[in-house]
Amino acid sequence: MPNDIQAVGDDPRGEAAPPGTLQAPPGAGRTAIQLIEYSASTLEEHADCTVALLEERRGRSPVQWVHVRGLGDTDTLRAIGEAFGLHGLALEDVLDVRQRPKVEHYDEHLFVVTRVAVPGRPGRTSQLCLFLGDGFLLSFQEGSDAWLESVRQRLRQGRGRIRESPVDYLAYALLDVAMDSFFPPLEELGESLEDLEERAMGEPGPGVFEAIHVTKRRLLALRRSVWPMREMLSHLLQEDVPWFSGHTRVYLRDCYDHAVQVIDLIETYREIAADLSDVYFASVSVRLNAIMKVLTVIATIFMPLSFITGVYGMNFRTDVSPWNMPELTWRYGYPAALLLMLITAALLMVYFARRGWLSGKAEGRGRMDDEAQ
Amino acid sequence: MPNDIQAVGDDPRGEAAPPGTLQAPPGAGRTAIQLIEYSASTLEEHADCTVALLEERRGRSPVQWVHVRGLGDTDTLRAIGEAFGLHGLALEDVLDVRQRPKVEHYDEHLFVVTRVAVPGRPGRTSQLCLFLGDGFLLSFQEGSDAWLESVRQRLRQGRGRIRESPVDYLAYALLDVAMDSFFPPLEELGESLEDLEERAMGEPGPGVFEAIHVTKRRLLALRRSVWPMREMLSHLLQEDVPWFSGHTRVYLRDCYDHAVQVIDLIETYREIAADLSDVYFASVSVRLNAIMKVLTVIATIFMPLSFITGVYGMNFRTDVSPWNMPELTWRYGYPAALLLMLITAALLMVYFARRGWLSGKAEGRGRMDDEAQ
Amino acid sequence: MPNDIQAVGDDPRGEAAPPGTLQAPPGAGRTAIQLIEYSASTLEEHADCTVALLEERRGRSPVQWVHVRGLGDTDTLRAIGEAFGLHGLALEDVLDVRQRPKVEHYDEHLFVVTRVAVPGRPGRTSQLCLFLGDGFLLSFQEGSDAWLESVRQRLRQGRGRIRESPVDYLAYALLDVAMDSFFPPLEELGESLEDLEERAMGEPGPGVFEAIHVTKRRLLALRRSVWPMREMLSHLLQEDVPWFSGHTRVYLRDCYDHAVQVIDLIETYREIAADLSDVYFASVSVRLNAIMKVLTVIATIFMPLSFITGVYGMNFRTDVSPWNMPELTWRYGYPAALLLMLITAALLMVYFARRGWLSGKAEGRGRMDDEAQ
Amino acid sequence: MPNDIQAVGDDPRGEAAPPGTLQAPPGAGRTAIQLIEYSASTLEEHADCTVALLEERRGRSPVQWVHVRGLGDTDTLRAIGEAFGLHGLALEDVLDVRQRPKVEHYDEHLFVVTRVAVPGRPGRTSQLCLFLGDGFLLSFQEGSDAWLESVRQRLRQGRGRIRESPVDYLAYALLDVAMDSFFPPLEELGESLEDLEERAMGEPGPGVFEAIHVTKRRLLALRRSVWPMREMLSHLLQEDVPWFSGHTRVYLRDCYDHAVQVIDLIETYREIAADLSDVYFASVSVRLNAIMKVLTVIATIFMPLSFITGVYGMNFRTDVSPWNMPELTWRYGYPAALLLMLITAALLMVYFARRGWLSGKAEGRGRMDDEAQ
Amino acid sequence: MPNDIQAVGDDPRGEAAPPGTLQAPPGAGRTAIQLIEYSASTLEEHADCTVALLEERRGRSPVQWVHVRGLGDTDTLRAIGEAFGLHGLALEDVLDVRQRPKVEHYDEHLFVVTRVAVPGRPGRTSQLCLFLGDGFLLSFQEGSDAWLESVRQRLRQGRGRIRESPVDYLAYALLDVAMDSFFPPLEELGESLEDLEERAMGEPGPGVFEAIHVTKRRLLALRRSVWPMREMLSHLLQEDVPWFSGHTRVYLRDCYDHAVQVIDLIETYREIAADLSDVYFASVSVRLNAIMKVLTVIATIFMPLSFITGVYGMNFRTDVSPWNMPELTWRYGYPAALLLMLITAALLMVYFARRGWLSGKAEGRGRMDDEAQ
Repeated sequence: MPNDIQAVGDDPRGEAAPPGTLQAPPGAGRTAIQLIEYSASTLEEHADCTVALLEERRGRSPVQWVHVRGLGDTDTLRAIGEAFGLHGLALEDVLDVRQRPKVEHYDEHLFVVTRVAVPGRPGRTSQLCLFLGDGFLLSFQEGSDAWLESVRQRLRQGRGRIRESPVDYLAYALLDVAMDSFFPPLEELGESLEDLEERAMGEPGPGVFEAIHVTKRRLLALRRSVWPMREMLSHLLQEDVPWFSGHTRVYLRDCYDHAVQVIDLIETYREIAADLSDVYFASVSVRLNAIMKVLTVIATIFMPLSFITGVYGMNFRTDVSPWNMPELTWRYGYPAALLLMLITAALLMVYFARRGWLSGKAEGRGRMDDEAQ
Repeated sequence: MPNDIQAVGDDPRGEAAPPGTLQAPPGAGRTAIQLIEYSASTLEEHADCTVALLEERRGRSPVQWVHVRGLGDTDTLRAIGEAFGLHGLALEDVLDVRQRPKVEHYDEHLFVVTRVAVPGRPGRTSQLCLFLGDGFLLSFQEGSDAWLESVRQRLRQGRGRIRESPVDYLAYALLDVAMDSFFPPLEELGESLEDLEERAMGEPGPGVFEAIHVTKRRLLALRRSVWPMREMLSHLLQEDVPWFSGHTRVYLRDCYDHAVQVIDLIETYREIAADLSDVYFASVSVRLNAIMKVLTVIATIFMPLSFITGVYGMNFRTDVSPWNMPELTWRYGYPAALLLMLITAALLMVYFARRGWLSGKAEGRGRMDDEAQ
Repeated sequence: MPNDIQAVGDDPRGEAAPPGTLQAPPGAGRTAIQLIEYSASTLEEHADCTVALLEERRGRSPVQWVHVRGLGDTDTLRAIGEAFGLHGLALEDVLDVRQRPKVEHYDEHLFVVTRVAVPGRPGRTSQLCLFLGDGFLLSFQEGSDAWLESVRQRLRQGRGRIRESPVDYLAYALLDVAMDSFFPPLEELGESLEDLEERAMGEPGPGVFEAIHVTKRRLLALRRSVWPMREMLSHLLQEDVPWFSGHTRVYLRDCYDHAVQVIDLIETYREIAADLSDVYFASVSVRLNAIMKVLTVIATIFMPLSFITGVYGMNFRTDVSPWNMPELTWRYGYPAALLLMLITAALLMVYFARRGWLSGKAEGRGRMDDEAQ
Repeated sequence: MPNDIQAVGDDPRGEAAPPGTLQAPPGAGRTAIQLIEYSASTLEEHADCTVALLEERRGRSPVQWVHVRGLGDTDTLRAIGEAFGLHGLALEDVLDVRQRPKVEHYDEHLFVVTRVAVPGRPGRTSQLCLFLGDGFLLSFQEGSDAWLESVRQRLRQGRGRIRESPVDYLAYALLDVAMDSFFPPLEELGESLEDLEERAMGEPGPGVFEAIHVTKRRLLALRRSVWPMREMLSHLLQEDVPWFSGHTRVYLRDCYDHAVQVIDLIETYREIAADLSDVYFASVSVRLNAIMKVLTVIATIFMPLSFITGVYGMNFRTDVSPWNMPELTWRYGYPAALLLMLITAALLMVYFARRGWLSGKAEGRGRMDDEAQ
Repeated sequence: MPNDIQAVGDDPRGEAAPPGTLQAPPGAGRTAIQLIEYSASTLEEHADCTVALLEERRGRSPVQWVHVRGLGDTDTLRAIGEAFGLHGLALEDVLDVRQRPKVEHYDEHLFVVTRVAVPGRPGRTSQLCLFLGDGFLLSFQEGSDAWLESVRQRLRQGRGRIRESPVDYLAYALLDVAMDSFFPPLEELGESLEDLEERAMGEPGPGVFEAIHVTKRRLLALRRSVWPMREMLSHLLQEDVPWFSGHTRVYLRDCYDHAVQVIDLIETYREIAADLSDVYFASVSVRLNAIMKVLTVIATIFMPLSFITGVYGMNFRTDVSPWNMPELTWRYGYPAALLLMLITAALLMVYFARRGWLSGKAEGRGRMDDEAQ
C-alpha cells in the first residue's frame, strides 16, 4: 500500500481547525522561489528570490513565471498567497499533496492541480499546482522539479514558440511535460507485463502472481492520476475558459490527445494484467494435473505389484495341505510370479498411454508453440 | 450483516399507518435540544432547552442553531416540527435513521440528510438531518454528537470566519465535518489492506480471506453512504439552490472535492481488495501444488523400493528348484538388493530434481523478492 | 427457474391473433369487482358489484375506486374496458401478468403497471394495474389483494389525509403500499445472507453454495421488478404529468426515495452474495489443502517405516553368507530396527512441524476470530 | 461458432468492387415475388408475380404489399430496386444478410432492417428488410417466410383492424410478429437453464458445463439481434418519423415494450447462466473434496495397519537373542497384534468422525433440501 | 506484448524538444510521393513525384490525390507540410504512428487519422492520415499501402461513381477500404475461436489456454483501433462538418454501419473468448476429478488387500501356541484368504459403482453430445 496508493494520512487540518488553515505536508522540503521573467527578446532568472522581490518585480515583463519548490515553509507560502491574492482554500489545496487533478476558477486567476509521474518509480506521482493569472504563472511543486528543466532549457535557448507566446502557452508547456511524464513508467510497466506473460506461461512460482499484483497496483495508481487529468484538460479546452487563447487551445488539444492515449494504454494494460492472472491459474492447474498424474500412474502400477509380492510373502504352510500356496513349490513359480507382475505393469502402462497420461504435457506445449508463431 | 449493512428492519410505520406517522427508531436515546445563538460579536448557549423557549427566542439573533440529539421522544420532535413548519414526510425521514443522503426543497427551508462515520467502527455511520431556513439551522443527530464538538469550539472561540458568516456557512461547516469524518475509517481500512496483502502473500490461513471479506463489506457500507453524499453536495452546488450564497458555495465546492477524494479512495481500495482475493487463491493453489509435490515425491520413491523388498520377501522355496529366487542364496544377494534400491532412489531423485520439484518453491520466492524491491 | 424468474410462457395471443385480443392468464381466478366511493365525509362500499352498477354510479362521488380482483373472466373485463374507454392494448397488458412496471399516457386516463412483492415468497411478485382518470381510479390485481387491506382500512377509518384528498392521492397510496411490500422479502434475504455468511466461513457443504445461488436468483427477480418501478415513479414525478397535483407529488417523491432505497439494498445484497461465493470457494480450497496435508503427513511418515519393515522382511539366507542380512542375527537387531523407525518418524514430524503443517489450521482460525471482533 | 454467431464470411463485394455492387449471399434461394393488394373491402393476391406486373399494378389499391422471398436472383432484385427507386446501398444491405437491425431515412421511403428468430433453433435469426413508402410496403425475406403466414391469414380473414388501416399498420404488424418470434426460443432456453440448474447441483459431468456454455452462446446471439431492434423501434417511435401515424405509433410502443421485455429476459438468463458456472465449479470442488476425503481416510487407516503387519513380518531371528521379536513366540502374540490393529483403526475412525469427514456430504445435501423448499 | 499492443516506445520528440518537432518513427521506410489527378473524363498518375511538381500542378484538376508512402524522410514531409499549409502538430501526429483514430478541424482542411488492419497479422494495424482540403486529398501511409490498390484500380477503370464525384468521395473510399480491412482478421480470429472451443471441450493442454489468451490480446488490439474509428466516423457524419456533401454522407453512414458491425463482432468474440477460459477451467477440473478418482479407486481397493497379505505374512510362531495364526495351518487357509480378498475387492467395486465413479465420465460426455446436436 505505502508505495503506490498514497494513504489518506492525517487530515492536514487539526481536529478543530477551520478550513483554510495551512499545515506543511509531512516531510516537505525547504521552500525555494525562482522567478523567470521573459519576453521574445529578453530573459531574466532570479533563483532563491524573496516575496518582497516578487512584489517589486510584479508586472515588469510580459510573462513572469514564479516557481515555488518545496512546501515546508508555510509562512513564505502564506506571504506569496497574500501577494498574489490567492484564496485560502486554494492555498490549502497546494499544501495537501494528495489532491486529484482539477481546475478551479477564481476571479483573478485560474487554479489548476495536476500530477507528475516520478521517474523510475512507476505508480508514484508528485503534485504540481498552477495559478494562471494576467501575465504571470505561479507554480508550486512538491518534491523534485528536475522534470521542469526541459521547459527552462527551451525558455533559455528560445527554441520553439515559447518565448514569443503569452503566459498561457507557458502553462500549456508545463501541463504537456507533466502529461508526457506518464509515458516512461507506462513503458516500464508494459515491459514488465511482457516479461510476466512469458513467466506465467512457463512454470510460474508464487512470485509471478505477486508481481502481477504489484503491476496491477501500479497501473491502478497511474489510472487514479490520469483520469482526472483528462477531465481537467477537457475542462480547459471548453470555449468559456478565458485564460487560454484559441492559439494555445490547439496545443492543449494535443495534450488532451496524449491523456486519452495514456488512459487507453493503462486500460489495455489493466485488461492484459487481469488476463495474466487467468493464465497463471491455468498454468498452475495444469501443473497440478500433471503432478497428480505422476502420482496416480506410480501408485496404480506399484500397488497391484506390491499386492502380488504380498500374496507370495504370506506364510501359509505348504507342508500341511496341498491347497496352501502350491505355487511356492513349483519349479517355475518365481519366474511365473515375475512374469505376472511384468504383464500387469505392461497392461497398466498401455491403459495410461491410451488415456494420454504419459505424453500429454509435451504435446500440449507443442501446439502452443505453433500458435505463438 | 448486522455490523455494516444496516438491515431494513421493520418499516417505521405500522401496517396500516398513513404516511407521516412518527415512530421513534428502535434504541433511540432521550431527546435533548441545544440552542446556540450567535453573531460576530455575541454567542449564547442554551443547553437542554424546551420547545417553548425555542419559539420565544426565534429571530432574536442573526444565526440560531437548534441542535436536537436523540430521537426517542416523538412528542417533542412533533412539537419542534410544528414550531418550525416542517413537512410531515421530512420529519418521518428524520426518524427513519437508514436514509440515504439527499436534499429536498420545501418552501420555508432546505432539508438535507447526510451521514457521519462513527469513529472506531469502520463501515458504521449515523444520520444527521439539517433544516436550513432563514436565519436558523435545525439539526437532528441520531446517537452520539461528539464529532460536532469541533464546530462548537470554533463557534465559542470565534476562530475562522464562522462567527462572521450567515447561517449557510454553519450548515457548510457541519457538512464539512461530516464529510471529513470518513477519512479516519478509510485510513484504518487502508492499513488493514496493507496488512492483509502481506499475509495473503505469505502462508494464508482461512482467517485471511475472511478478513478480506470483512474489509470489502466495510468498504461497501462506506460507499453506500458516500456516493449519495457526493450527489447531495453536487446538488447543493447548483446555481439555483437559493439557500447558499456564492461565498459559501466556494467552500461547499471544497467539501465536494473531499467527497470525490473519498469515493476515489473507496473505489481504489475495493479494487485492491478484489485483487487480494486473487492473490489469496494464488497462494493457496501454489501451496496445494507444493503439498502434492511432497506427497508425489515420497510415494514415487518409496513405492518402487517397497516393491523390491516385497519381491525378496516372497516365500518361493529355493530348495525345490534352482529357478526359485536364487538371489536369496547368493553371497552378495543382500548388498546387491540394497544397491538396487539405492540406484532406484537416486535415479528418481535425479528425475525430480530435473523437473524442478525439489527446489521449486524456494526459487519462486526468490524471484518475488527481487520483484518487490 | 419456475419459482423466481417467471417464464415467458405462451404468448397470450394465439398464433394468428391480432393485437388487442384478450386471453385470461393461465390459472387466473374469478373476477370480482369492488367499488368504493368516498369524500371527506362519506364512504360507500359495493362488494361484488356489476359493470352495470359501475356505469350507473359513475360520477356520483368525488372519488370512485373500482378495484377488480382476479383476471379469469375476459367478458367482464372487456365490458369494464368499454365502460371506461380503455385502449385495447392497455387491456391486453392487464391480462399479460408478466409486464414490467411502466406508465402510458392515454387521452382519458393514465395507465400504470406496477408490481407487488408476494409476502412470504421472496422473489415472487404479482401485478397491479392502475387506470387513473378524472375522479376515478380503476385497479386490476392478479391473485391475492390482501396487501390492499391497509389502504381500505385507512379509507374506512378516515385516518391520515386520504379521505380529504382527490383521487391522485389514492393512486399514490396504492403505489406506496406496493413499493413498501418489497421491504419484508428484502429483510428476509438479508437475514438469509447473514446466516449463509456464517456457514460459508465454517465448514460449508454443497448446500451452502446452492443456497447462495437461490438467494442470488431471488435478488435478481426482485431487481427486475424494482428498477422499472423506479423509472416509472421518476416518470410520474415529472412536471408534465397532469394527473398528479403538486401536493401529491411531494408524497410520490417520498415513494421514489423508497424505490431508490430498495434498489440500493438489492445491489448491496447482490454484491455481498457475489462475495460470499468467493468466501465459499476460499473455505473449500483451504479445506482441500487441510485434507491433502493429512494425507501427505500420513503417507510420508508411514511409507519409509513400511519400507524398513519390508527390508527386514526379505528372505535372504543368512546361513549361506555373512553378507546376507547379518542384522537379523544381531543380539539387539530388533530393538535397533524399532529405534531406526522411531528416529525416522520423529525427524519427519519435526520437518512437518517446522513447515507448519501440523497446526496450521487452528492458528488461521484464531486470527480470524480477532478480526471479527 | 457456425451455429450461433454468424461468421463475418467474405465481404459480399469483391476485392475492388465499388460500394453498391450486388452479390447474392451464399446459399440464397430462388427469388419469388408475391403481391397482396387490399383495402377494407377488397383483397387480391398475386403469387410469383413479375417486376413488370408490379409496375403495372402500382398505385391501384390503397395498400400494396410486395413480398420478396429468397435473395438468389440479383437481376430481379436490381429490377425491383429500380422500379421502386431504392438506393444502391440499401439494396446492398438487403443482400448482406448479416445486418444489424437499423432504420435509414430516404426521401421516398423508410428503410428498416429487422431480424426474425428461426423457430426450433435458438440463437439463429434470419433477416427481414422493409421499405415503407407511400401506399406500399416492400419486404425482403432471407430463407423461410412461414412465420409471415399469420399476418397473411389476418389479412385474408379481415380480422383485427389490419384491413382498415393504412400501410404503416401493416409494417407494424410485420415488426410485431418478428419481435414476438423471439419469445419461443427464449422459453426454450429458459427451460434448458432450469434443467441445467438441476444437473449442476447434482453430480455434474463435463457435459453440463458445455451445455451451459452453449446456452450462453445462444443467449449472446439473441442479444446481438434484440438490442439493436430495441434501438430501431425506439427510433421509429420518435415524433419526427413521418411514416408512422399517431394511431399506429400506439401499437409500435407496445412492440417496443415487448423488445424491452425480451432484453430483460435475455439479461436475466445471462446472469443466471453465469451464476450456473459458479454452481458447477462449486459442485465439482465439493466432489473433489469428497474424493480426497475417501482417499485420505482409507490411506490413513490402512497405512498404520500395514506398518504393524510389516513389523511382525520381519525376519529377526528369535532364536539368537531374547531381544529379537519375543512377541512372535508369546502365547497370545497374534491376537494381541490383531487387537492392536483394531484399536488403531478404531481411534482413527473416531478422529475422522469428529472432523466430520465420514458424514459430511449427506448432511450438506440435507440442508440444501431445506433451503429449496 | 510487442506483437499486438504497440508499446509506447520513445516519445518521438527528444527530451527538451518543443511540440511540433518532427522525428521519423523507428524503422520508417523511404518517403515516396504519388500524385493522381482526375476528373470524370481524365486521369493522370505521377509516381515518385517531387514537392516542386506538387506545387506546380496544384489546382490543375478537379480532384488531386497526393499519396505519401513511408515516413522516413522528415525534410520532404516538412516541405509537403509547408506546401499545403499543414499545422505543425498535425504533421507531428502523422509521424507518431501510434495515434488513435481522430478528426481535427483546421481552417484550410480536415485532418483525419485512421487505422488499417495489416493483412495476415490479426491484431496488427498501420496508420493512415488524411488531409481533406479544397479539391485535394493528402494521404500519409505508414508501411505497406498495397491495400489501397483496389481504390487505384477503381479510379483507373472508372468503375462506380468515384471518378464523377468530388474529392470527399475519394476520402470516403479510403476510409471505407480501411474499415473493411478489419473483416478478414476478425474472420480469422472467429475461426481460431471455433477451433479453440473444440479443443477446450476435449482434453486441453496448457497450449489451449495460451492460445485463448493470445486471441484475447488480438481482439483487445483490434478493439483499441475500431472504437475510436467509430467515434471518428460518427463525428464526420455530423451535419456541421462542411467537408462532406450530403451525397457522400449517405455513403459514410454505410461505412459507420460497418464500424458498428465490426465492434459488435469484436465484443461478441471477446465474450466468447472469456467464456472459453471458463470452459477450459471446467475441463481441467473435471479431469483432475477423474484422475483423483482413478487414484482413489486403486488405492482403496489395493490397500485393504495388501493389508490382508501383510497379516498372513507375519511371522508369529504357530508352533508355540494354538492362538498364533492357526489359519496358516488350515487345509483351506490359502484359498480362504484369497476368497476374503476377492470379496473385499468386489464389495469395494460395488461401492464405487454405486457412487458412479467407475462410469461417470463416459456418461457425462454422452449427454453433451445430445446437447450439441
